[in-house]
Amino acid sequence: MELMYLNTVWIVLAAAMVLFMEGGFSLLESGFVRTKNAVNVTMKIFVDLTIGVLGFWLVGFGIMFGKDVVGILGTSLFGSPEKITLSIELPSAAFVLFQMGFAIACVSIISGAVAERMNFKAYIITVALICMIVYPLSGHWIWSSNGWLAKLGMKDFAGSAAIHALGGFAAFAMAKRLGPRNGRFNSDGTANVFAPSNIPLASAGAFMLWFGWFAFNAGSTLDASNTSLASIALNTMLAGASGGTTALFLTMKKFGKADPSMTINGILAGLVAITAGCAFVSQWSAIIIGVISGFIVIYATLFIDSLKIDDPVGAVAVHGFNGVFGTIAVGLFDQSQGLLTTGDFSLLGIQLLGAAVVVVWGLIGGTIIAKVCEMTVGFRAKAHEEEEGLDMSYHGIPAYNELERFTDIPGSLYDFEETTGISIAPAGSRKESII
Amino acid sequence: MELMYLNTVWIVLAAAMVLFMEGGFSLLESGFVRTKNAVNVTMKIFVDLTIGVLGFWLVGFGIMFGKDVVGILGTSLFGSPEKITLSIELPSAAFVLFQMGFAIACVSIISGAVAERMNFKAYIITVALICMIVYPLSGHWIWSSNGWLAKLGMKDFAGSAAIHALGGFAAFAMAKRLGPRNGRFNSDGTANVFAPSNIPLASAGAFMLWFGWFAFNAGSTLDASNTSLASIALNTMLAGASGGTTALFLTMKKFGKADPSMTINGILAGLVAITAGCAFVSQWSAIIIGVISGFIVIYATLFIDSLKIDDPVGAVAVHGFNGVFGTIAVGLFDQSQGLLTTGDFSLLGIQLLGAAVVVVWGLIGGTIIAKVCEMTVGFRAKAHEEEEGLDMSYHGIPAYNELERFTDIPGSLYDFEETTGISIAPAGSRKESII
Amino acid sequence: MELMYLNTVWIVLAAAMVLFMEGGFSLLESGFVRTKNAVNVTMKIFVDLTIGVLGFWLVGFGIMFGKDVVGILGTSLFGSPEKITLSIELPSAAFVLFQMGFAIACVSIISGAVAERMNFKAYIITVALICMIVYPLSGHWIWSSNGWLAKLGMKDFAGSAAIHALGGFAAFAMAKRLGPRNGRFNSDGTANVFAPSNIPLASAGAFMLWFGWFAFNAGSTLDASNTSLASIALNTMLAGASGGTTALFLTMKKFGKADPSMTINGILAGLVAITAGCAFVSQWSAIIIGVISGFIVIYATLFIDSLKIDDPVGAVAVHGFNGVFGTIAVGLFDQSQGLLTTGDFSLLGIQLLGAAVVVVWGLIGGTIIAKVCEMTVGFRAKAHEEEEGLDMSYHGIPAYNELERFTDIPGSLYDFEETTGISIAPAGSRKESII
Repeated sequence: MELMYLNTVWIVLAAAMVLFMEGGFSLLESGFVRTKNAVNVTMKIFVDLTIGVLGFWLVGFGIMFGKDVVGILGTSLFGSPEKITLSIELPSAAFVLFQMGFAIACVSIISGAVAERMNFKAYIITVALICMIVYPLSGHWIWSSNGWLAKLGMKDFAGSAAIHALGGFAAFAMAKRLGPRNGRFNSDGTANVFAPSNIPLASAGAFMLWFGWFAFNAGSTLDASNTSLASIALNTMLAGASGGTTALFLTMKKFGKADPSMTINGILAGLVAITAGCAFVSQWSAIIIGVISGFIVIYATLFIDSLKIDDPVGAVAVHGFNGVFGTIAVGLFDQSQGLLTTGDFSLLGIQLLGAAVVVVWGLIGGTIIAKVCEMTVGFRAKAHEEEEGLDMSYHGIPAYNELERFTDIPGSLYDFEETTGISIAPAGSRKESII
Repeated sequence: MELMYLNTVWIVLAAAMVLFMEGGFSLLESGFVRTKNAVNVTMKIFVDLTIGVLGFWLVGFGIMFGKDVVGILGTSLFGSPEKITLSIELPSAAFVLFQMGFAIACVSIISGAVAERMNFKAYIITVALICMIVYPLSGHWIWSSNGWLAKLGMKDFAGSAAIHALGGFAAFAMAKRLGPRNGRFNSDGTANVFAPSNIPLASAGAFMLWFGWFAFNAGSTLDASNTSLASIALNTMLAGASGGTTALFLTMKKFGKADPSMTINGILAGLVAITAGCAFVSQWSAIIIGVISGFIVIYATLFIDSLKIDDPVGAVAVHGFNGVFGTIAVGLFDQSQGLLTTGDFSLLGIQLLGAAVVVVWGLIGGTIIAKVCEMTVGFRAKAHEEEEGLDMSYHGIPAYNELERFTDIPGSLYDFEETTGISIAPAGSRKESII
Repeated sequence: MELMYLNTVWIVLAAAMVLFMEGGFSLLESGFVRTKNAVNVTMKIFVDLTIGVLGFWLVGFGIMFGKDVVGILGTSLFGSPEKITLSIELPSAAFVLFQMGFAIACVSIISGAVAERMNFKAYIITVALICMIVYPLSGHWIWSSNGWLAKLGMKDFAGSAAIHALGGFAAFAMAKRLGPRNGRFNSDGTANVFAPSNIPLASAGAFMLWFGWFAFNAGSTLDASNTSLASIALNTMLAGASGGTTALFLTMKKFGKADPSMTINGILAGLVAITAGCAFVSQWSAIIIGVISGFIVIYATLFIDSLKIDDPVGAVAVHGFNGVFGTIAVGLFDQSQGLLTTGDFSLLGIQLLGAAVVVVWGLIGGTIIAKVCEMTVGFRAKAHEEEEGLDMSYHGIPAYNELERFTDIPGSLYDFEETTGISIAPAGSRKESII
């Protein structure tokens, strides 16, 4: 039997699991934001999965994996990614599908940090630009065999830098430029916190993300004959567990409560931090990386708050800061080249360079996107849209309609008369059907 | 290593994912219907997964894959599907398990269209008849090697016709016969719309469905050495993405709002439409098919509304209309026999015939089932049951009990005294425990 | 191609699915308990996934699979489970990861039975002791090749005894010692029932559990060349379906309502009961086992109620009683050694012994853990904590915040001033932002 057959099954299943992580992002963010914006964050993930996927397929894949020009970008395969030839025994379609999941994971990170106050059309532009240009460009540097960072020897197995740090710092730039949600910080310098609206929903998202992460990391082998496949998965598990353990105990000690959002973010922090090194470090190192990530996520969250930058779900702390840490951690813990394991500084230097490049590129990319939006459709939601909630403003429906009202919601799709031309009976005649 | 081993793993995992789609149907429908019927739609999916599975195992599988009689039906393997011998290297148990998921997907489609007003016992009868007779019969015509449509050369790779069009048009017939929900259309010809009760829940269902769809389509290879496996998965992704993109933009343009239910249904429409052709068309064709499906789902929804047929979740538009379109699309876009790709009309003719046969059979099947129910347990819920909500009427519990009341719900399982014989303290003595 | 590669992919994917079952436990329990404790049950599952995973990795694995001492316990591999050498072609990391999912499944069973009234710190201790000592010890007896029950010939393919009966009876002991929730039984001997708070959420959990169960059972082959792999998955499906069918019909007949929690628990009961025998029994036997489990779960629930032991989610009836039944059922239905299939009593005797041993060990283990907690952090939540709800008491946040209030929740992480040092504007100035 040919290895190609097994690789195909492996990567198609892994891709499906990675794409399922979009559901994880959606539920996590829906649960973390306020109810009046829970539909909007969901719809943004659907934009990732639709427009983002098509944009990456049409343009982004070619920039990332097309014919290389001086280590900077690819210049072929636009609208025909199936023409790629791989050095491994894997059909191009499986590779393209798997890479799609990575591209939209990057922009999904951003979706959380800009939640509750961004113009929906601006988000569509963001998705297009991230999936077509920003992510594929630095992706080319790191993951194309001819990319300039790849040639320097940078190691980023499944994307602590290429995806998480990039997405996290683009998110940072955009969240900063967008300004905080109305009411988040008061004019006298004091601050308010908004409680997550639905913890069980957020936890469901976390479980879906963790499930998909096994495929995200172990699937990055692209090859089932890679002998480190199983230890990648185990390292992923251990780092997530130790990140979560650390954040859990830290909130109990620091705040007197075992905080759910911080525990979830601690788990995700561990998963982000091990993503670069999962194939290169020992199990004990994976645990240490996870523990450190648990500290980082909490102190980074407080630090970002202190800058008066508003990140409703903690995306910058989870993905940005721990993406950078994970990239650097390879330089420390890599079993054959790490500073702490071999005393060799050279890989660490490259990792630091790579992390810095990605951070800067993320900040630049995020800022450019913000400006493009400002100059076109508008970047931030209008004050009354934000006040009303983005769900009603952009989508014409609240997240939860438990009162089971009739939905003659003016200006929405449920403003039935306007949208279908069928006139609706006067309110009085409908009253009796309202439960 | 034998190919059989890989095929076994592949199809068992694919079957698990297809069966997980039942969870997707359940959450999608729970989120789309009104709160007072959210438990009932969930319970109907559990009926699919329990009674439907057993009925298909006992009877349906034999009709579908048993010893053929003149291309019309199978006549063996009843209660012993393990005795089948396959021409591919796959254990019969894996094949049976995978086919189970398909059978209950068909009836799950119906469950949405009849939501909020159908007698629960009638639904049990529906599940039994669909899984034991209606679906296996046309399934035999299309997918048994001796089926009459199969012999004509009809191509329906993963079931746009066999599952989606059949389920969708059986649903159409049953929804029509059942009549609209009370209050949906007014006596003066005007109409009301009911808003979905829980958008985040519905979106979770959509993510689960999309995840499972990779297995639904790519798993239909039944053989990991099928070289089109990966491109099937990628085509599935692309069609879902373009269906969703189209519906999203169309609602923004047409209604001024990016509508969540229509976007979700656009994604599902693309997935349904590519299901027949996923193994036969190019990536560009998959995108075009998805785009068309996005238009179809919206205009079909408005068309069905204009007929005053009530389909609470849009199942007929998604599965029925796009199932037909997907079947026909093979005749247009098939890379070796399609009209648009080769100029050859013959396959298109066969696909049109096949689609028409399935639509007619779906309508007949749905009508017969409705009549059987009317003559036995009653087809439609009683007026007071519908008014109260099917959750309390049939299941004795509301979907959401956030007020944490004690559950001395008269006539329900939570009418504790009646069901257990243990008498409950008078209400007064329990008050203090109510939060 | 080497079988090792396929086995690696198979077990890594199976492990991911088994770990995803934790999400199933979490949502199921969140939906079954009262709203005021929905966060707490979720957080307990995160404790399983973090502290439980690390505890098993560090200590439990060595006790379970380390160098055997007189069939009682393992004594090596502590903190280095990667050093195990397996007799099958599978990397040790894949085996360790898969076993982790089993260990935390055992303690997740307990989490349900002690819901709504247990001290959170006591649960952390429980997780540590179960994953490090209690589960690995009896796991060694049954699943280590040198374990004393294994040597007697006990058959427990995927853990009806080793996981479900053990977890279920440890849960029984702990629930008994913990006492019922306040208000559950009245002083005059009467009883109250608390309705599940969120049925759609609970159903989502059930779907996730069923999905993962395919991997739980079929993954226990650990070897893709095991020819019974597919029939294990099909037997799993059939037993779940028949357990659910039975419970559904029984509640309709007995209570006049098709009860969702009982139907879900009937499905789970069937899955638990087939777990020991899935590799050894015929499809018809799987159905019979499922049917019996559906009866058991309902009557066991009523029996446990009659003992005035409070099990909020029915964990003892589902996992404890059906775990025992499933273990015994192997002795009845095993195709080569079962009493009913071969007339041979010997295997049945061994299974009865094994089940009894596990029940006794579960009761002892649960009791010891309870005492340890009582002597240290306290076993039961304080009365005011239980009254307020464990969510606010231990986690400082309610599950659902649909009113979108500002979260200046005193004493919680959302008591912003206290936790960050940034003072919050007086309530008046924030009012305008409250939706």
